[in-house]
Amino acid sequence: MKKHADKWRVSYQRTIEYDVVRSPNLFDFENTALLYPGVAENNRRFVVIDDVVEKYYADDIRNFFKQHGVEAKIVVFPSTEENKTLESYLYFVQELDAFPIHRRDEPIIAIGGGVLTDVISFVASSYRRSVPHIKVPTTLMGYVDASIGIKTGINFEGHKNRLGSFEPPLKVLLDKSFLKTLPKRHVLNGVYEIIKLAIIKDIELLALLEEYGKESVDAQFQNGMGDVILDRAISSMLEELEPNLYEDDLTRKVDFGHTFSYGLEIYNGSDLLHGEAVLLDIIVSLMIARDRDLLTNLELERIFKLIDDLGIILDISVLDPDVLWESLEERTCHRNGVQRVPMPDGLGNCVFLNDIELHEIQTACQALSNRVVLEYERTI
Amino acid sequence: MKKHADKWRVSYQRTIEYDVVRSPNLFDFENTALLYPGVAENNRRFVVIDDVVEKYYADDIRNFFKQHGVEAKIVVFPSTEENKTLESYLYFVQELDAFPIHRRDEPIIAIGGGVLTDVISFVASSYRRSVPHIKVPTTLMGYVDASIGIKTGINFEGHKNRLGSFEPPLKVLLDKSFLKTLPKRHVLNGVYEIIKLAIIKDIELLALLEEYGKESVDAQFQNGMGDVILDRAISSMLEELEPNLYEDDLTRKVDFGHTFSYGLEIYNGSDLLHGEAVLLDIIVSLMIARDRDLLTNLELERIFKLIDDLGIILDISVLDPDVLWESLEERTCHRNGVQRVPMPDGLGNCVFLNDIELHEIQTACQALSNRVVLEYERTI
Repeated sequence: MKKHADKWRVSYQRTIEYDVVRSPNLFDFENTALLYPGVAENNRRFVVIDDVVEKYYADDIRNFFKQHGVEAKIVVFPSTEENKTLESYLYFVQELDAFPIHRRDEPIIAIGGGVLTDVISFVASSYRRSVPHIKVPTTLMGYVDASIGIKTGINFEGHKNRLGSFEPPLKVLLDKSFLKTLPKRHVLNGVYEIIKLAIIKDIELLALLEEYGKESVDAQFQNGMGDVILDRAISSMLEELEPNLYEDDLTRKVDFGHTFSYGLEIYNGSDLLHGEAVLLDIIVSLMIARDRDLLTNLELERIFKLIDDLGIILDISVLDPDVLWESLEERTCHRNGVQRVPMPDGLGNCVFLNDIELHEIQTACQALSNRVVLEYERTI
Repeated sequence: MKKHADKWRVSYQRTIEYDVVRSPNLFDFENTALLYPGVAENNRRFVVIDDVVEKYYADDIRNFFKQHGVEAKIVVFPSTEENKTLESYLYFVQELDAFPIHRRDEPIIAIGGGVLTDVISFVASSYRRSVPHIKVPTTLMGYVDASIGIKTGINFEGHKNRLGSFEPPLKVLLDKSFLKTLPKRHVLNGVYEIIKLAIIKDIELLALLEEYGKESVDAQFQNGMGDVILDRAISSMLEELEPNLYEDDLTRKVDFGHTFSYGLEIYNGSDLLHGEAVLLDIIVSLMIARDRDLLTNLELERIFKLIDDLGIILDISVLDPDVLWESLEERTCHRNGVQRVPMPDGLGNCVFLNDIELHEIQTACQALSNRVVLEYERTI
């Protein structure tokens, strides 16, 4: 600490470090990844699982901890957007009070979808000013996006993630077999985040999706090329997140697809999954980019073809330009008064726009609507 | 980011840096410290003040922002322990929603006592995953302790600071003139934290307190030697906090006086100020230290004389050994299962004890009680 005549300067270098680890067969006795950083006598673990995990793995999880002599409290929490509330947050704080854990060597374990890991990591970050936590994503959205970064959050009074924090996990454990039981809609929900990365920064990932996307979706990513896509998506995502882990720089490529989607999610509630809102945002953005000559028609059609090939059916009826505009305004406030909208500049490259106007959004929506009518007419 | 066969390692060096700055005449037009990091067009500030600040400075504050063309929303929040609640926290979140501020260049400003800065810094840390904040302590407790570190928190269901975070402020502004209007009891409340530092790590600070403590308390620290004491206390405190800013190491000298005080505060509610509970903890600790031959009787008497000279009247009737023991157990849980109780090893030096037993606390309380009876008999 430096003391000057009239001030003290407090300086501290904080090292953030965590591993995102592939760890198959997570509940096998021999796999001790879930017990990180190790088990001492009378150790305890507070474990939160969602209802899907409960259905398929509750007994395995109970046995796993029992066999290792760890007293585990297992709490079930359905990982749905409606549950991403202050009430859920407070419920877990109370449950923790009722099951005291050590502040450092008994990490909270969150096994479930993105909502569950978001809520539980916020609990972990603010309980006793932070206790460690381990995340185990069980959805594709969690696997390639929500769980591998450090964002935590809950919704509050109609605002998504209004309360939250940046809290590094102790570890993220990836077991792809969870994806086997995922409904197709939720598989695609995660694919949309992969498409986002492909368009905005990773043309190779786009090629992989074009060649092996369909096969991987059909195989719930249990296939070999599914692995390749997931690995590349995670690497690509972490490459963006790592140097800007606390979002000190608000100009972020990974915000592509996350400008208009914010409002879409609020207005459509649980009818629209996060990834679905992101994909709708992406196609509106692509239209705007095309109109600004940032994309050629050929590039645009390449993405529509990918969407089509993956068996994705777009419901563009929710695209209300006023909602999208309002969402852009909210995000502008969130981005410190500047739009900072990531846009493709050719596929695989990114520019940031700060001057998008309402009429561009209107034109984009109209063009999308005409396009659907045309396609419909073509099919009859 | 390093990608290995089966894992990704995310590494990030985060630089934490903030200044604690003496800034007299804070509301003078010429002093722009409160407008940090600067004023752009249509800038806004969300300002929280306590009722005492309102009483003396509300008009000055309003004028200050008005003269600088900043739209300020000023919210009054009495800085009392009973207000350190979830309800207060949520109230501020709603107020922020109703007065949108930029996420980076319009810091929240908290002007008040330790409770106010603790609550508002927690709001700032979790609103939109953190917006910047500036702290202006107006009590001695805030000046030398609560406001200069990065701890935030609110009480929850009878647990002190159960919810909170570590959140560096953008700046801490010190204007000693706020202390002028502080009731004597609250001046002493801050002095107890200075005594804590003196005993556990800073024998020079102890000498300063012995020589100039009384004069400084009487002068509400507006005297020259009051400045010297405050400067040394802040330096001494920051010296401890800075290298362990996030409490990665739970073995902390500054926890001296903060083991038994936790339970005392809970059991006595608003009858006992934080510093008063700390002082009671200190004297119990000193008795234990003496019984363990960590302190001589002479050293013990030196502290009792200082307490006496400063005009402090101790109410030891609240010292229930069972409450103190329960508090130690709670703190042990908080300190990851190890007591880690800081104790003086001679005045100005520190050791950590992990094996304090109930009977030592009982003996200490009994000895204190006998001592008071003796003193009472001496005075009649």
